[in-house]
Amino acid sequence: MVASKEQMDSYLEQGVNGYMAELAELCAIPSVSAKGENMRECADLVERMLKRHGFETRQFETAGYPVVFGHLDGESERTILLYNHYDVQPEEPLDLWDSPPFEATIRDGALYARGAKDDKGEFVARLAAVDAVREANGGKLPCGVTFVVEGQEETGSPHVAQFVRENLELLKSDGSIWEEGGVSPDGRPINLLGLRGVLSVEFNVQTLSRDAHSGGASKLPNAAWRLVWALASLKGPDERILIPGFYDNAHPPTELDLQHFRDLPSYEEQERTDFGIKEFLRGATGLDYKSAEFQPTCNIQGFESGYYGKGMKTVIPAKAMVKIDFRLVPDQDPDDIYEKLMKHLQDQGFSDIQVTRLGAMWPSKATADNPLVALTARTGEEVYGKPSMIVPITGGSSPVYAFAGPLNIPVVTAGVGYIGSRTHSPNEHVRLSDFLLGSRHIARIIDGFAGI
Amino acid sequence: MVASKEQMDSYLEQGVNGYMAELAELCAIPSVSAKGENMRECADLVERMLKRHGFETRQFETAGYPVVFGHLDGESERTILLYNHYDVQPEEPLDLWDSPPFEATIRDGALYARGAKDDKGEFVARLAAVDAVREANGGKLPCGVTFVVEGQEETGSPHVAQFVRENLELLKSDGSIWEEGGVSPDGRPINLLGLRGVLSVEFNVQTLSRDAHSGGASKLPNAAWRLVWALASLKGPDERILIPGFYDNAHPPTELDLQHFRDLPSYEEQERTDFGIKEFLRGATGLDYKSAEFQPTCNIQGFESGYYGKGMKTVIPAKAMVKIDFRLVPDQDPDDIYEKLMKHLQDQGFSDIQVTRLGAMWPSKATADNPLVALTARTGEEVYGKPSMIVPITGGSSPVYAFAGPLNIPVVTAGVGYIGSRTHSPNEHVRLSDFLLGSRHIARIIDGFAGI
Repeated sequence: MVASKEQMDSYLEQGVNGYMAELAELCAIPSVSAKGENMRECADLVERMLKRHGFETRQFETAGYPVVFGHLDGESERTILLYNHYDVQPEEPLDLWDSPPFEATIRDGALYARGAKDDKGEFVARLAAVDAVREANGGKLPCGVTFVVEGQEETGSPHVAQFVRENLELLKSDGSIWEEGGVSPDGRPINLLGLRGVLSVEFNVQTLSRDAHSGGASKLPNAAWRLVWALASLKGPDERILIPGFYDNAHPPTELDLQHFRDLPSYEEQERTDFGIKEFLRGATGLDYKSAEFQPTCNIQGFESGYYGKGMKTVIPAKAMVKIDFRLVPDQDPDDIYEKLMKHLQDQGFSDIQVTRLGAMWPSKATADNPLVALTARTGEEVYGKPSMIVPITGGSSPVYAFAGPLNIPVVTAGVGYIGSRTHSPNEHVRLSDFLLGSRHIARIIDGFAGI
Repeated sequence: MVASKEQMDSYLEQGVNGYMAELAELCAIPSVSAKGENMRECADLVERMLKRHGFETRQFETAGYPVVFGHLDGESERTILLYNHYDVQPEEPLDLWDSPPFEATIRDGALYARGAKDDKGEFVARLAAVDAVREANGGKLPCGVTFVVEGQEETGSPHVAQFVRENLELLKSDGSIWEEGGVSPDGRPINLLGLRGVLSVEFNVQTLSRDAHSGGASKLPNAAWRLVWALASLKGPDERILIPGFYDNAHPPTELDLQHFRDLPSYEEQERTDFGIKEFLRGATGLDYKSAEFQPTCNIQGFESGYYGKGMKTVIPAKAMVKIDFRLVPDQDPDDIYEKLMKHLQDQGFSDIQVTRLGAMWPSKATADNPLVALTARTGEEVYGKPSMIVPITGGSSPVYAFAGPLNIPVVTAGVGYIGSRTHSPNEHVRLSDFLLGSRHIARIIDGFAGI
């Protein structure tokens, strides 16, 4: 039987305050995986929340923080897998928040907190969707639902791939909804088919046993300069990455990908305004702008060296550090890129630089012609009243590859975000209206999944 | 008449406790110019001390702290100018001091306090030298002595050049002893003929109205990359500075300069050990090492951008900042270098970088063949029992140019320091034996100055 859509929708509408309270409870735990505090406390709360909503649960230890697993059987053999994460990005800079990042505050129709959208808000919206389907379906689910909620997505998901490989039978499923999703600026639900891979590294160099007076700069090596030159050897102002072989396995968009991009609205003007810029890198505009994410990147996350307080200090820094991420397109392999990077640094004379690998993810991209994509598109249009946007690839990374490959399942997106959600930034928030739309959409996908 | 050297020396030896008491009184005032407290109180004490030793005094207001002026006529028309400063470096870190920084303590034959050597100890040693010359000379001085004691040497002497330009007649003199000096590790008095200039600047760039997720790095400009490329355009790994015209007025050492360097002992091995390095920049060794300060520099003092905490943050930094100093050799002009830097950045496409000028000093170098240098060398050997070390130029900067240029006078160094004085560091001290040697040496220079 198929649940009444009206019943699901009204259940969600009436319950929204309760779900906001659950979200506030979850956002109160500062589970910043980069800092590594409060992680088990947050995993325990996620497990309690899953139990509260009727799931059988388990926690799995990993080499990092635990993965929380939840499962609820359905009336059919089919199972849908929902992937989320309970860790969040660092809250800094604190002074740019209008309310404390770990005290959820509702104002102007939105809940503000670190994690309000990414990814605690997404997780709670899915719990709500499951509740609604059961409520409208006599307490039962038409398909099985499996939750995988991990704790290190924001630091590159270093252990989730191994968790999947070790639990293939437990995670056996027929499709998956990814950790995040949402609505376009013109109100269309977004279905994202591809995500880029990423390789994150840190460079450290120490040239002197201690900082020296800058009067000695004719003789003494400066750590900051070493990193500046090493970085300049990686990429020039034309944005072309100079590591030999870097582009070898980077595939350009196919004709079908380009057609999807053409069908998408352009947010060019809006993104320029949002970031206060005159033009995009490489002067990209039109289709080049829309398909820019097929260009892999080499991004400096941060650089620190020497004295950067008020005024000046006549010092030669002994140490310098830089963090870098490379976003990779199908079929670039972060292991291969890491090897090429190391060889390049060696060849360019930068063997004094100590490279630490912070994390890696592989790129992944689904095809547009499978039934889950069609279901998501149809239910999306039903809820949002506008056709879905099918996006061939986007800029970010996610461990989609870790599930899609070994489990051999299609992966789609649906969720509670919008372009102004400020994920990873101060004043992150979820709009209550988006929360409702997202949970309605996911309820319909779960409700329809047995029949495709 | 020439004073009896024995009489001067024994006067100083007998009086040393009294001078230590005066030094302790002066060190008790925490005149840290970077903090800006107690500055007038210290200027007033310096003025009272000058009066106490027979000088006519005045205080001159500047845009910063007062300059204390003192003058005592001599029997001849010739006048020697003594430059000192009453401000000191910050006392931090406090926990590394064995006795409170502003309570002078005598132990193991040395007086410990912030300013004990730099520069309050130097100042008191000169008062002692003047007393000794008068004592041995029937109460008279063979030449006039002028003191200029300023309050902002430790923060780059921003106002002393203007003070000199506005008081050329008052400061008219025939030679000068600079604020600090002392003895080499092997007991030779050091005579320093040149100091480098400096231009300090800060680069700031903002590429986005706020930090962005690094998934956007195919399209959004990164502030850290802008500074990396701008810096790489200033200097390459071969240490050659790439600003067009940078070296135009940079004079290499003369044959006489090189001869002086050859006569100096080498601290190459010691400096390598001290900084834990295998080799110096450009592989400099031997004479290249000794004369390295004839190479002007472009030094990164510090670099800050984006996220540099633990782990990683997938962010595109909107802002980046770097502080740089250029050490300049005769006859480079910081105004000219600043203009060339600005033009270079413009020409290289970096007009998005906002450049702030933090400070400037001009290089200055006396020639080795003037009579004051010869007098200082001779009296140094007489007092220390070893030949003087004549150093053509050193790495640091000092407002020597502010006096040497407009007054057209040779400037030499003599003083009370040694390599372990810990100036600018915890446990700064002056050894009583160095105080006596330094004051004897300066007494002989003053005594002999009328006759050269």
